[in-house]
Amino acid sequence: MLSQMAEPPDIFGKQYILTAGPTPLPPSVSAVMAEPILYHRAPAFVEIYSRVLARLPLVFQTTNDVLCFAATGTGAMESAAANLIAPGEPAVIASCGKFGERWAELCDAYGADTHRVDFEWGEKVEPAALDEALAALDRPPRAVFATQSETSTGVVNDIRALNEVVTGRGSVLCVDAVSGLGAVDLPQDEWGVDVVVAGSQKSLMCPPGLAFASVSERAMALAAERARGRYYLDWGRAAAGQKEEPPNSAFTPAVTLFRALDVALDLLLAEGLERAFERHALLARAARAGVDALGLERFGPEDESANVVTVARLPDDVDGAKVPKLMRDSYGVTIAGGQGHLKGKIARIAHCGYYGAFDVVIALTALEMALRDLGHEAEAGSGVAAAQRVFAEAGAAPTPVG
Amino acid sequence: MLSQMAEPPDIFGKQYILTAGPTPLPPSVSAVMAEPILYHRAPAFVEIYSRVLARLPLVFQTTNDVLCFAATGTGAMESAAANLIAPGEPAVIASCGKFGERWAELCDAYGADTHRVDFEWGEKVEPAALDEALAALDRPPRAVFATQSETSTGVVNDIRALNEVVTGRGSVLCVDAVSGLGAVDLPQDEWGVDVVVAGSQKSLMCPPGLAFASVSERAMALAAERARGRYYLDWGRAAAGQKEEPPNSAFTPAVTLFRALDVALDLLLAEGLERAFERHALLARAARAGVDALGLERFGPEDESANVVTVARLPDDVDGAKVPKLMRDSYGVTIAGGQGHLKGKIARIAHCGYYGAFDVVIALTALEMALRDLGHEAEAGSGVAAAQRVFAEAGAAPTPVG
Repeated sequence: MLSQMAEPPDIFGKQYILTAGPTPLPPSVSAVMAEPILYHRAPAFVEIYSRVLARLPLVFQTTNDVLCFAATGTGAMESAAANLIAPGEPAVIASCGKFGERWAELCDAYGADTHRVDFEWGEKVEPAALDEALAALDRPPRAVFATQSETSTGVVNDIRALNEVVTGRGSVLCVDAVSGLGAVDLPQDEWGVDVVVAGSQKSLMCPPGLAFASVSERAMALAAERARGRYYLDWGRAAAGQKEEPPNSAFTPAVTLFRALDVALDLLLAEGLERAFERHALLARAARAGVDALGLERFGPEDESANVVTVARLPDDVDGAKVPKLMRDSYGVTIAGGQGHLKGKIARIAHCGYYGAFDVVIALTALEMALRDLGHEAEAGSGVAAAQRVFAEAGAAPTPVG
Repeated sequence: MLSQMAEPPDIFGKQYILTAGPTPLPPSVSAVMAEPILYHRAPAFVEIYSRVLARLPLVFQTTNDVLCFAATGTGAMESAAANLIAPGEPAVIASCGKFGERWAELCDAYGADTHRVDFEWGEKVEPAALDEALAALDRPPRAVFATQSETSTGVVNDIRALNEVVTGRGSVLCVDAVSGLGAVDLPQDEWGVDVVVAGSQKSLMCPPGLAFASVSERAMALAAERARGRYYLDWGRAAAGQKEEPPNSAFTPAVTLFRALDVALDLLLAEGLERAFERHALLARAARAGVDALGLERFGPEDESANVVTVARLPDDVDGAKVPKLMRDSYGVTIAGGQGHLKGKIARIAHCGYYGAFDVVIALTALEMALRDLGHEAEAGSGVAAAQRVFAEAGAAPTPVG
């Protein structure tokens, strides 16, 4: 009689969240949220709030006040639409993915005469095409809306070039930097970008729930021309409170999330913004090399600045929708698959925020194992070997924060 | 030579947050936020999200879906304004304090023809006066806006009576229950209230950052008549996501705050809603007795339903603005003073959410000591003695949750 095979030990029960938002949190960021709640008008919180407000501009590379809202990234984006769009006026969207489409939906919701300059999902927005579209309008739109890091496809747009086009035509550019801020350089003031919006839950290493808008004086003035149709997300009201001494929040701030952000900013600024960009670039190079070594095609353009999410096209011989599910359910590794019409066609390996070398190792290994389970052969360890070569070529890998 | 007196031991360094929002958090609510972040589309979070959505209607006493937003209480209020107000149409505000004024500001921001039915801060809204104001309009407003618990003055309005007036005139009532939900009974469906909005940071024992709207079918239909001018706070979009199976959030939910709410709902529903209302009522009776025993006049009407915040008028012989400051800086007890024109005139003793008998004891004792420091004599322990008598009369005080 055959002895019954024992259940194998549970070595894949340990969970890894390797998504592009929410992103993994540094333990010290998680821990601070468990401290007793603070009253938002008491000195202990006002000190934290002031410190956060003083340091956020360093991350946005601006002298603007960075306006803060209790909301997620879409709330930050909506603040731009609500403050800059007047019903019936033209608004132009430069879109190449799901989050570009969100700009268009927002502009439609606010009654804009929305003009879309659309690129295929996986392509970058071409500055020349945007210029052509702007030139074709009777009058320049007040605002043009674009995406820095299009998380749905891994594409990172050339914001500097887009901004030159937009400001050259007399409009202000509003950039969704929700997933890219802190991962890919976007020197707002140096490039003269009028509006940059972001959220807490991506490269800023915090939970979702805080939204930010860094708004130039010029864009603030445009917003002030028409003050109707907004309240909670009103830039003027937020700026007035934050300019008080000590700074004041127009509404109760999300106290626990501000404490988290305070700790996360400690970590990010201790690493240094430039070093953080380099870390993201190196992790992305390793992820790209790993995907190539697994014999997978990469989705999107060959681009050294696509350092937020690395996207692999899944092979035709596997049921792509099963890949992220298998990685999670069999191996405890949560990554994201495709959104919209890319569902089942791509796997997205995130490396934005609190990510280090071994996160890339884990993602590549779990991807390889899931593909093998689905009948797609890849040489065991080939992805990780390629990633390691990239790490080695870079010398000692930069120490991840935390 | 006199020996120098040693610094007394630091017995007042321990901090107590006894405010009406943020309110103190149960330790288990704080602790869960320190757990590793979850991906919002992974089963572990979907399970929590589904459980929260299934239980929130119990707290609102409704069969409506309770729509959730990553925002603070004002965001919940704004959702009502954004979904129900059309520019130029009449909106009526029944106001008796700072949060009533916020409704008016919101309606103005959305371009309503705003009619205010104002009562003095510290008075309740009179249903008959509201009825008269509604009768005087050419046509019924689509919506009337009122406040359940006016945290700025301690007043709790008679929502049942106001709702009868409003529905009798063919309008829908939108109730700001931000601080009262879970503390004072508001059986939405039984009373037929169309819209109740709330936030997480008051009697729901969570940090600020979650906003809720419980919206009747009738109000949803009114909102659908005009879909412009909103996106993030759109009721239809939120409802569509939440009705999916499993429920889906239109935008990334505030993951850590949902985990906190899940634990807080465990506590609240284990205590039972009815028992929680009784606890708040008993704590309020004790606080009122304590304030009386300290020889202070109470602010606002004599009202057995004013069970969220007890408000003491500060005596003329002290500099009132110093009272909360002294309580906090000298004794480690943070309570709120007055807002707006009540600044320096009142002290607000909160008992909403995670509050028990000894919180009232602490607040009364610290208030007594601060008043004495400012030269206003009160018999030592008189406030606490009166509170204890109330506790004793009630038999064993109900056990606070947690």
